[in-house]
Amino acid sequence: MALLGIDLGGTKLAVGIFSESGKILSKEIIQLGGRTGKDVSLLITKAITKHQSLNTVSPVESIGVSVPGISRIKTGTVWAPNIPGWEDYPLMQEIKQVAENVSVTIDSDRACYILGEYWQGGAKQINDAIFLAVGTGIGAGILINGKVLRGAHDIAGAIGWMALDKSFKNKYIGCGCFEYHASGEGIAKIAKELLTDQKDYYGDLKKIEPAKLTAANIFSAYEKNDTVAVLVIQQCIEFWGMAVANLVSLFNPEKIIFGGGVFGPAVQFISAIREEAAKWAQPISITQVSLESSVLGGDAGIYGAAFLALQNRNHQ
Amino acid sequence: MALLGIDLGGTKLAVGIFSESGKILSKEIIQLGGRTGKDVSLLITKAITKHQSLNTVSPVESIGVSVPGISRIKTGTVWAPNIPGWEDYPLMQEIKQVAENVSVTIDSDRACYILGEYWQGGAKQINDAIFLAVGTGIGAGILINGKVLRGAHDIAGAIGWMALDKSFKNKYIGCGCFEYHASGEGIAKIAKELLTDQKDYYGDLKKIEPAKLTAANIFSAYEKNDTVAVLVIQQCIEFWGMAVANLVSLFNPEKIIFGGGVFGPAVQFISAIREEAAKWAQPISITQVSLESSVLGGDAGIYGAAFLALQNRNHQ
Repeated sequence: MALLGIDLGGTKLAVGIFSESGKILSKEIIQLGGRTGKDVSLLITKAITKHQSLNTVSPVESIGVSVPGISRIKTGTVWAPNIPGWEDYPLMQEIKQVAENVSVTIDSDRACYILGEYWQGGAKQINDAIFLAVGTGIGAGILINGKVLRGAHDIAGAIGWMALDKSFKNKYIGCGCFEYHASGEGIAKIAKELLTDQKDYYGDLKKIEPAKLTAANIFSAYEKNDTVAVLVIQQCIEFWGMAVANLVSLFNPEKIIFGGGVFGPAVQFISAIREEAAKWAQPISITQVSLESSVLGGDAGIYGAAFLALQNRNHQ
Repeated sequence: MALLGIDLGGTKLAVGIFSESGKILSKEIIQLGGRTGKDVSLLITKAITKHQSLNTVSPVESIGVSVPGISRIKTGTVWAPNIPGWEDYPLMQEIKQVAENVSVTIDSDRACYILGEYWQGGAKQINDAIFLAVGTGIGAGILINGKVLRGAHDIAGAIGWMALDKSFKNKYIGCGCFEYHASGEGIAKIAKELLTDQKDYYGDLKKIEPAKLTAANIFSAYEKNDTVAVLVIQQCIEFWGMAVANLVSLFNPEKIIFGGGVFGPAVQFISAIREEAAKWAQPISITQVSLESSVLGGDAGIYGAAFLALQNRNHQ
């Protein structure tokens, strides 16, 4: 028997067949290529049908899907802000039509990240762990006693909205304070703000058209000790440290795992983040947590999706 | 059969006999009178012995104890910062010596507050609810799927340490940023800072010796539109709103209950707190939460202690 893990991202779909013991048997990446609405769902259902007919020796027993947004358990619908037409998309219903009595489970990417690490990554046998995903946006997958924190209406872990720097500024509308300052997009935005302010700066970042500036540019410039890049990163470390402190004080976790596109290059700052967090956090709790980078990296979501499938294979 | 609920505070002990259905049958308040260390434990064990011999018709079946600090489940010891000698006090062992085969459960006051409200207060049948206790200090009792969030080492809910106002200031050492600004003690401290700064202020608060200034003074002065009191309260509302926003974004709860000595007088600001929180929080999640004042007030802890007893009456 096999498990099918599907990780839908904002630009691509990853489909993997897993053994029950967590071995990845095959993996396929499909570009969304600008698809929207129903066409994205078709990509998923076609992939399912294909894998079901392929694996006749070891048929798919259960399907798990990670989505870049919120999975509403009660209705089976998905809100995915980066997929046009997916405000409240009936994904569960459409998958069930092709799944042929196989169990289907859908959850948010942040939930899948921490479940993936719990199953086959850096959080094995760690029941209280958090995955802090910093990419274009920021989210947190929070594991409590081995179960994902969902909240009353499936939106828990929206840490990008964390208030960290009073007073409120209008620029936080639509993304949240933490995400504004310290996400991949935030890094580029803050750099642009600083470049506009610093009239006497003539470094490498000035050579890039402001609209095209990315977090990757900032990390490269940081390596060369660029003054603006250093300022941006220092500010990010402060925000990441404060966010870690708040997770530590509230959840008293054993481990916080850093992942997403930004961690990545920012894993080099984990000890600086700990130093900042230690200033703010509950002083005993901070000594009890380890901060680590993701073991599964870009595969955390697909592993988590397969683990959803494993957990729910008997509940149709 | 009866339940014995014991609520140890920093200055007094409340002991109550409850029916299984949550009716309080008797309640006694005992002042600590400056007792420390073993003498506080003796007060508790004597109260237990007394109640066990009194209730021969309906004997005590299970005992629950709320402590003003951290209850370490594995070791049965308690850390209570306001009781000298209770850094790691073996309370479970000492209670078990007199409890005569009756089940004993000890938990933190913040855990008991939310459990009390869940059992007999404003959080009945609400599985995802938070009690924000603002008194001398600040703590949060967090209920997830009907269970208290404990964390990996029993220190979860230490929200007084929440980082809300970068950059870090040394005055936050020992109490945490949120508690510094918006606890009962914090309110008095911030008022003192403002009184020192505002040389042209001649209001009522100047008539009080700075060392004796309390949050109660500030609330009274606020009623009379005192300029310093208004500034202090406005700042508190901002911090309370940000903290609520962070709880909402992270936990997506159904209800947040305000309690402790400060709520109390500050319940009048709940709608202003919601307004501030709405600026910062995940925008869907904030519409899904209700903010309310505690139904049980000063009895939340003893109700929670009795509920601990009820939950664990069969597990000795």
